[in-house]
Amino acid sequence: MSLPPPAGVIKLDQNEVPIPPPQHVVEAAAQALAVANWYQPAALYDEVRALYAEYAGVAPAHVWLFPGADDFFEYILHRARKVAVVSPTYFLFEDQARFHGVELLQTPLRGEEFKLDLAEFLSAAKRADAVYIDNPNNPTGQLLLRPKEVEEVLALGKPTVVDEAYFEFSGVTVAQLAEAWPNLAVVRTMSKAFLLAGMRVSPVIVGAGYRLHYNTVRFRVSLSSLAAARAALYNRGYVGEVVKIVKEGAAYLREELARLGIKAWPTYANFILVKGPPGLAAVLREYGVWVRDEEQRLGPGHVRITVGTPEINAQLVRTLKTVLKASLPQPSA
Amino acid sequence: MSLPPPAGVIKLDQNEVPIPPPQHVVEAAAQALAVANWYQPAALYDEVRALYAEYAGVAPAHVWLFPGADDFFEYILHRARKVAVVSPTYFLFEDQARFHGVELLQTPLRGEEFKLDLAEFLSAAKRADAVYIDNPNNPTGQLLLRPKEVEEVLALGKPTVVDEAYFEFSGVTVAQLAEAWPNLAVVRTMSKAFLLAGMRVSPVIVGAGYRLHYNTVRFRVSLSSLAAARAALYNRGYVGEVVKIVKEGAAYLREELARLGIKAWPTYANFILVKGPPGLAAVLREYGVWVRDEEQRLGPGHVRITVGTPEINAQLVRTLKTVLKASLPQPSA
Repeated sequence: MSLPPPAGVIKLDQNEVPIPPPQHVVEAAAQALAVANWYQPAALYDEVRALYAEYAGVAPAHVWLFPGADDFFEYILHRARKVAVVSPTYFLFEDQARFHGVELLQTPLRGEEFKLDLAEFLSAAKRADAVYIDNPNNPTGQLLLRPKEVEEVLALGKPTVVDEAYFEFSGVTVAQLAEAWPNLAVVRTMSKAFLLAGMRVSPVIVGAGYRLHYNTVRFRVSLSSLAAARAALYNRGYVGEVVKIVKEGAAYLREELARLGIKAWPTYANFILVKGPPGLAAVLREYGVWVRDEEQRLGPGHVRITVGTPEINAQLVRTLKTVLKASLPQPSA
Repeated sequence: MSLPPPAGVIKLDQNEVPIPPPQHVVEAAAQALAVANWYQPAALYDEVRALYAEYAGVAPAHVWLFPGADDFFEYILHRARKVAVVSPTYFLFEDQARFHGVELLQTPLRGEEFKLDLAEFLSAAKRADAVYIDNPNNPTGQLLLRPKEVEEVLALGKPTVVDEAYFEFSGVTVAQLAEAWPNLAVVRTMSKAFLLAGMRVSPVIVGAGYRLHYNTVRFRVSLSSLAAARAALYNRGYVGEVVKIVKEGAAYLREELARLGIKAWPTYANFILVKGPPGLAAVLREYGVWVRDEEQRLGPGHVRITVGTPEINAQLVRTLKTVLKASLPQPSA
């Protein structure tokens, strides 16, 4: 059976939290499997919507559930020819946009701290049909805009997607602005802090300007995924614990990496961007550690690493020590 | 917990087979839940594609998996302004098309046997940007086109969707034509004879003219749904048993209904269209039997009823007897 994660691998390349979903969530989903010959009832979809709405502090009518953010991105990409984005940004959005022939008006993040120049971004957004911004940004882990600044973007009147996939770690959200701004869509996910990546539940909080078809969208998230999401939202104390583990892990990694002479940026997500010796991602892979190589986008030695559990983080640090030692010139005998 | 089916209801309104998925499928899906903090691997998606391709007799590259047919329908509906359809047809396709402002060029099914006039349909298809036909048709249960006739439609060169959701019951398919015709898309499902409605796995077999983006589509079907589909396809002997039960059930129902003076059409699917006294669906609902009311589309007394297990079918017949008796004028005392 080819279930994840791959055997013998430390998998830190897709920002999955390496902690299994809690028992109450697994059990709720498992109960649903036994009756999976039936379609998921509308009432269950609506219940999960309402629970998520309560969690996000918005009215239920603003919340839709998709089996992944990309399914919602199609909504934007089928209606736009030019989308304003920052650069770098979530690579799957870029990839999907290019696939659809949508032009990306890119505003580069600038300087050592990957700052966004709001005026420059607004100027690009004015020329675009839609706006996409991941906040915090992937792969840098930086928060790019404060809510007040998002409102400046919204004031342009373009359909504007704020991707808050890492909201639970950043603590910063504009979800509640969807009540006032018809053009806002806030993308969330249960893939990270809720530990449900494989279940495919991506809540999207939309303003009144988005026209979605209830009877088609509601069938896309499976019965057992809805059951899992329902249990997770009802009893969500574990999310806080996950966030605590991740934040402590990120702090530990930054400290240890600094000691090894590897630059590690601060993060508002469950991953850290680091800069080590050129070819770092490829060498780590030889040691069974999978990370995301960002050399092509950010230059030699740049790697995005998912924060793991204390054990996994310690293992990563040990492997990095070995790698760095092996790559140093050896003293001649 | 709001899991289906609703308590105390005989649910025959959505063409779900009222038999739970087999143990090997449930167990495979349950195993996946424990590791659902990980994304589904591409290798698993590809494995299910390959298994379905083998089942359908096509090359794996033609097979895509969607979390429901409607997710694929968006592909068509975003690219077409006019779609040729038969009437009546699958109501969710009609509904979704109208929602997107797509014009439906409808060719009515004619006569007591709901026959399609191919010449009339071709003439409409010529004026359309795309073609959708459900074969067998929903809600009539009739096979509308033979493969040779589908080729006449394909020869027009329009993107053409043949919805074979009920293929396992009809035994008639054009899936293999996707190798030769770039404009053909054959929609299948694991919701019916595979007993996995709630899992959301709809394979679509497309010709070379369809451009789908692997890295976005592949994330939409959940890890446990892929695990379920994989187990179901590997060990699919049960599908034949389901089809046998359904076919015997349909024959039984037609015979019993005829005896009750209710017209029941022959069927190539797991539902039968019947014509009883006006208001039949509404009265059945009062007795806890849910069926699909087709009065609006087909006229008084028309109802689409899912074929159940022998026990459920017998219960339905008993309820119909009660209903018919109650609705007859009573002899005066």
